[in-house]
Amino acid sequence: MADVLVLTEKELRACVELDSGAVDMIAEAFATLATKPVQMPPILRMDMEERRGEVDVKTAYVPGLDGFAVKVSPGFFDNPKKGLATTNGLMTVHSAETGVVQAVLLDNGYLTDVRTAAAGAVAARCLAPESVSTLGIVGAGMQARLQAKAFCLERKVDRILVWGRDPDGAAKAAQEITRLTGRQASVSESLSGLVREADAVVTATPSRKPLIDRAMLHPGLHITAMGADAEQKNELAPEVVAEAELFVCDKHEQSARLGELHHAVGAGLVPEDMPVTELGEIVAGLKPGRTEADQITVCDLTGTGVQDTAIAVHALKVAREKGFGTVVST
Amino acid sequence: MADVLVLTEKELRACVELDSGAVDMIAEAFATLATKPVQMPPILRMDMEERRGEVDVKTAYVPGLDGFAVKVSPGFFDNPKKGLATTNGLMTVHSAETGVVQAVLLDNGYLTDVRTAAAGAVAARCLAPESVSTLGIVGAGMQARLQAKAFCLERKVDRILVWGRDPDGAAKAAQEITRLTGRQASVSESLSGLVREADAVVTATPSRKPLIDRAMLHPGLHITAMGADAEQKNELAPEVVAEAELFVCDKHEQSARLGELHHAVGAGLVPEDMPVTELGEIVAGLKPGRTEADQITVCDLTGTGVQDTAIAVHALKVAREKGFGTVVST
Repeated sequence: MADVLVLTEKELRACVELDSGAVDMIAEAFATLATKPVQMPPILRMDMEERRGEVDVKTAYVPGLDGFAVKVSPGFFDNPKKGLATTNGLMTVHSAETGVVQAVLLDNGYLTDVRTAAAGAVAARCLAPESVSTLGIVGAGMQARLQAKAFCLERKVDRILVWGRDPDGAAKAAQEITRLTGRQASVSESLSGLVREADAVVTATPSRKPLIDRAMLHPGLHITAMGADAEQKNELAPEVVAEAELFVCDKHEQSARLGELHHAVGAGLVPEDMPVTELGEIVAGLKPGRTEADQITVCDLTGTGVQDTAIAVHALKVAREKGFGTVVST
Repeated sequence: MADVLVLTEKELRACVELDSGAVDMIAEAFATLATKPVQMPPILRMDMEERRGEVDVKTAYVPGLDGFAVKVSPGFFDNPKKGLATTNGLMTVHSAETGVVQAVLLDNGYLTDVRTAAAGAVAARCLAPESVSTLGIVGAGMQARLQAKAFCLERKVDRILVWGRDPDGAAKAAQEITRLTGRQASVSESLSGLVREADAVVTATPSRKPLIDRAMLHPGLHITAMGADAEQKNELAPEVVAEAELFVCDKHEQSARLGELHHAVGAGLVPEDMPVTELGEIVAGLKPGRTEADQITVCDLTGTGVQDTAIAVHALKVAREKGFGTVVST
């Protein structure tokens, strides 16, 4: 029927990396989401409790792009015991003219890591104070590390503080963040100490209980919360969302269903119809981002199919230019 | 990370065909759906109206199977003008232990064709009269043809009548059905004539208006309606569902949301809490199928992720035994 290009993680790593180009591309994707009739159905999610596993499927159709992606993201929480990453998965890219599969991107979640980190950089670009001397990173996993790198693409940053539940894990993350960013990263003994000292904080944890509460807030603070992407996940106390002078998210419906807004509305601290700015509205110049140095701003990222389609279509283009991949004729 | 087996349509056709084995496997899948804690989230569906396209994603986790499948099914309605089939797509198979992708089945919709036809055979097995002299097929597409073949695996059938909106298309379908089934198939000039003469009828159309109405019903008739799998699709007048002495479907929630039950409840002709038998309950012996020769029975098939997981896991097993496929190391 057609030739399908199969690309491996190694090849995809050689096509796309977390740099300013990737951040610009994801910023553009958010602007498109805010200004064009993008189709982005609710995430398909399946839980396999007896296996301690879950799978998410996301997709989006972006007018103007000649392809659309479908992303399958399994997460199995006993994988680390087996020497495997918790998350893996792949994307398929289809012709937007015919639906025919053009490519299978066996990225093991790599493109998701990049597009998620890049969204953090877009949030920093739009919302962080101009001058961020101290960046706080909450969490010690792969995405926490990439968020540090992404943030440093957008702001100068003198030093980075890292907090994680497990001090050894946090120490390892700090080491790796120093290597990735060229900034001095060290472990903060307390989370409240980290937030107090930081001009901007990024949370990247699978927490089911709020980590940051109202008492930790201070004028000028920006927080990007990118951990919560399911009903039960929660990184910010509802008061933090209520207190923010500007609350921004990647996609309003998703934040209200799966993200931090969900918990704030649930606690009765903000009205269901609270005015919410989407990140893409700021990128597109439709709404302002941070306007004052002492504003408290919060950005909730749940992850959107439009990011997946954007990065997948871009990765496929680069891979074709480089002549990468295995062609399978079907 | 792991080796991924990529299989083509040609290879998959050599692994799985529409035969009694496939029907038994799909019957077993329905029984599992009715008796075990199968996880089967709502279908992810995206419409791309400006492209006259849509994509459905289905998945299911079946306890006991060592893998689960995710199926991506695009349908683009201008494809025939371009010399392409309307539907295409692929399935991915993942380890149920770790989520890691094990195989990519580039079947262009072939496995869906087989599992859908096999579901029709299961419906015939459970619900058609013992003696079906005349089978009526409504529709002239690929699935209409396969439904005829599937039905003949379960009942003797002397002759087959075919009706389609386009008489030329119906004539071609009748020719092909004769070839596929070894039974004499001919075109029926009127749909009401077809239903009147038939002991059992299978509808396999994308109709958005009811094709079969109450006046066409007669004692002993069995109807399998497999076309409607979206809110706007509809093959049976609401009165037909109301009149049926036994109404069966593959999955109650889906029939009530996307299938024939949806329209009957919407018309106020059956109560929302109408007792409904699922096909798997009959296969598992929990509820009776047809009990009387003169009963009117209706089966609504919407298509379920559990069929996809069952056929994909089976196809992968056979492909491995045969040494088929291209291994891509990721």
